[in-house]
Amino acid sequence: MHFEKTEYLSRMKKTQLSMAEKGIDALIVSDPANICYLSGHDAWSFYVPQGLIVTLNDNMPIFVGRYMDAFSGVVKTTWLDEKHVRAYSDTCIHNPNKHPMERFAEVITELGLDNKTIGVEMDNYWFSAQGYEVLKENLPNAKFANANLLVNWVRIIKSEKEIEYQHKAGVLAGLAIQAASDTMGAGVRHCDVVAAIYSAQIRGTEEFGGDYPSIVPMLPAGEMAGAPHLTWSDDKYPENVVVAIEIAGCYRRYHSPLARTVCIGKPNPKVADVAKIAVEGLEAALSTVKPGIYLEEMELAFRNVLKKNGLEKESRIGYSMGLNYPPDWGEHTASIRAGDKTVLQPNMTFHCIPGMYFQDFGVSISESFRVTENGYETFAHYPRNLILK
Amino acid sequence: MHFEKTEYLSRMKKTQLSMAEKGIDALIVSDPANICYLSGHDAWSFYVPQGLIVTLNDNMPIFVGRYMDAFSGVVKTTWLDEKHVRAYSDTCIHNPNKHPMERFAEVITELGLDNKTIGVEMDNYWFSAQGYEVLKENLPNAKFANANLLVNWVRIIKSEKEIEYQHKAGVLAGLAIQAASDTMGAGVRHCDVVAAIYSAQIRGTEEFGGDYPSIVPMLPAGEMAGAPHLTWSDDKYPENVVVAIEIAGCYRRYHSPLARTVCIGKPNPKVADVAKIAVEGLEAALSTVKPGIYLEEMELAFRNVLKKNGLEKESRIGYSMGLNYPPDWGEHTASIRAGDKTVLQPNMTFHCIPGMYFQDFGVSISESFRVTENGYETFAHYPRNLILK
Repeated sequence: MHFEKTEYLSRMKKTQLSMAEKGIDALIVSDPANICYLSGHDAWSFYVPQGLIVTLNDNMPIFVGRYMDAFSGVVKTTWLDEKHVRAYSDTCIHNPNKHPMERFAEVITELGLDNKTIGVEMDNYWFSAQGYEVLKENLPNAKFANANLLVNWVRIIKSEKEIEYQHKAGVLAGLAIQAASDTMGAGVRHCDVVAAIYSAQIRGTEEFGGDYPSIVPMLPAGEMAGAPHLTWSDDKYPENVVVAIEIAGCYRRYHSPLARTVCIGKPNPKVADVAKIAVEGLEAALSTVKPGIYLEEMELAFRNVLKKNGLEKESRIGYSMGLNYPPDWGEHTASIRAGDKTVLQPNMTFHCIPGMYFQDFGVSISESFRVTENGYETFAHYPRNLILK
Repeated sequence: MHFEKTEYLSRMKKTQLSMAEKGIDALIVSDPANICYLSGHDAWSFYVPQGLIVTLNDNMPIFVGRYMDAFSGVVKTTWLDEKHVRAYSDTCIHNPNKHPMERFAEVITELGLDNKTIGVEMDNYWFSAQGYEVLKENLPNAKFANANLLVNWVRIIKSEKEIEYQHKAGVLAGLAIQAASDTMGAGVRHCDVVAAIYSAQIRGTEEFGGDYPSIVPMLPAGEMAGAPHLTWSDDKYPENVVVAIEIAGCYRRYHSPLARTVCIGKPNPKVADVAKIAVEGLEAALSTVKPGIYLEEMELAFRNVLKKNGLEKESRIGYSMGLNYPPDWGEHTASIRAGDKTVLQPNMTFHCIPGMYFQDFGVSISESFRVTENGYETFAHYPRNLILK
C-alpha cells in the first residue's frame, strides 16, 4: 500500500461529510483517480466499468468490478477486505445484452439503499450515458444526484506523503526535459526525442523509477504549436524551429507537469522576447501565491505583465493537479483564470502553464508547485530560460 | 493525411448507409477512433468533449471541438474544410455552468435537424451521462437513438493501407518484446524493462517510428499474473519468476498487440507444460481461420485443446482490433468467444490472446492477425516459445 490506512480513513471521512452535506446516501465513484484515492486500487482496469460504492455508515468503500480486477487485484493490493469486493461476470464485457452497471444496482439493493439518494459522477469519462440509463432502469425507486467532482474537491489539499510523491515526480519531470533537450536537434526524428523522454520518465533515478504519466509527451513544433494536442510523428526537425515541450513526471500516479521550449537553430529575436515576457508573467503569477488569496489573483498578475507588453491570452493559465489516470493529469476542479474564487490553502498543488501561441511558433514555460505556509515551492528545479540547440 | 480522400469518402458512405438503415438522421461521433477514422483528426484532444456530426446528405462530417483543436488542428491536418469545423469557447472547459455539448445542440439546430433522430454513442467513454442530459435539454424536439458501435462495426474490415499500417505495428511489437526479453532478469527493476519497451515501441526502425499504444505495457509477474491489469513498479525481479508480457506496436494509431512469457531463473516444469498447451491451443484456433466461418469456431478449437489437457478458461480469448486511442486497442465489436456469430471476412483483424492464469503464475502467448482469402497472416513474426532468461 502506498499510504497508511489512517490516511485512507481520513479521505473516506471527508468524502462522507461532503456526501452528507449534499444529501447523498450512497456514492458511486467511477473516476479511477477517485477510486485509487479512496481504496488504493491502482490498475489499468478502467477500460471496463468499475467503481466504488461509498455509504454514510461504513468507513470502508465497496469495490465493484470485473472478477480478475476485483479478486485478484483489489483484494491483494488495497486496504479493502474481501467482504467489500463484488465482481461481475466476464460475459458482461462488450456485450450489448448485459451491462456491468446491473451489478452496481444489485449491490445497492443488497445494501438496502435502492430507495435512497444515489450520487453519480455525471460528467466523468468512465460513467457513460448508457451506464446511467441501466442504473436508473434497475433502481426505479432511487433518486439520483449529480456528485461530479465531489471526491475531486476532497483531493485538492494534499497530505505530506502525497507532496513527497509529487516532489519525486518533479525530479522525473526535470530528467525528461533534460533528455528531450539532450536529444533534440536539426535532422533528429521527433519519435527519437519522444523515446528518450519516455525512457527518462520511466527509468527515473537509481533510487526510484517512474510511472506512466496520464498524458503522452506533447512537443508541437513551429506553426503547429497553436494546436498543442497533436502528437509526434517520425518527421525530422528542420534547421530552424521552436519546439514547445509539455511532459510530466509521474510517481505512483502523482504528477508534476513541466513545460520548456527548445529553439533549434538560429534563435529568432521575437521568440526570445516572448519567452522573456512568458517567464516574467509566470514569475509574477507565482509571486502572488500564499494561503488566503483567490486563485484568480495569479491570473491577474500574469495578465498585467502581458498587457504591459501589448499581448493577451484567452485561455486559462493552469489548474489543480496531482493523482490521476489518462486522459488527463488535471483534477478538473480549480482553474487559474479570471473568476476562479478558490481560496488558496497550504498543500494545494497546481500546474501554472501560461503558453503563448502565435502563427509560426509557440512558447511554453511552466511550473508545478504547492502552496506553502507563506508562499510556494516548485516541484521541479529546471532553469526557466529558452533552451538553445 | 494518412489516407487518400477516396478512402475517407468510402468510410463516410458505409457509415451513412448504416445510419439510414437504423433511421438515424444525424450521428454524433464521440469515440476518438471513430472521429479519426472518418475525419483524419488525430490528437490527444479527447480529454475534453469533441465530436463529429455526420448527416445523410453531406459526404463530409462536421467537427465540433475546442478552438485550439478545431481551427489550429483539424483545419490544418484533415480532409475537412473550414466550413465543416465549429468551435466552442475555452470558458466551457471544466466549467460547471457551461457545457460543451450545448454547442453540439446549436450546430444540430443550425443544420435544421433539431426535430429529427439523433444517433449518439451511448456507451462510449467520451460521451458522458451529463453530456447526454445537456443534449436532451437543448434539443427538446429531437428523438435520440443508441448508435453505440455503429462506426466501430464499419471499421471491422480493414483497407490495404490499414493492413500495411498494422504490419508495421507488428514489426514494432516484435522489437518491443525483444527489448523486454533482452533487459529482463533477476535483480532488474520492472521500470527499467518498461523503459526499454517504450523506447523500442516509439523509436521503431530506421525506416519508421512508432506511435503511443492505447494501453501501457502490462507485465504482471508470478502470482500477480492473475491480476493482469496491475501496472509496473520499481521492484526488482526475484531469482525465479514467470512474467507474462502484453504490449502492442502502434503505427499511426493502428495496433498489433502481442504477448509473450518470460521465465526468469529455473524453469518450473508446470510452466513449460502450460506454455506448450497454450501454444497448441493458439495454433488450433488460428488453423480454423478462413472467410465464412463463425468467430466462435476459433474459441471452440482452443477449448478442445484445453479440455483434452484437463483445463478450462472462462473469459474470451480475443477481440477485433486496429485503430484506437486509450484506454483500449480493442474495437469492442467481435469477441473470440462462444456465441459470437461474426462471420469472418478478408481483412478483419484480431488479437487472439488465450492467457492462462494460475495461483502462482500466468502464461500469455498471443498473435495479432488478419483474415486472408483462404486463411490468416500474423502481423508479428516472433517465436511462440517460452522465453528463458
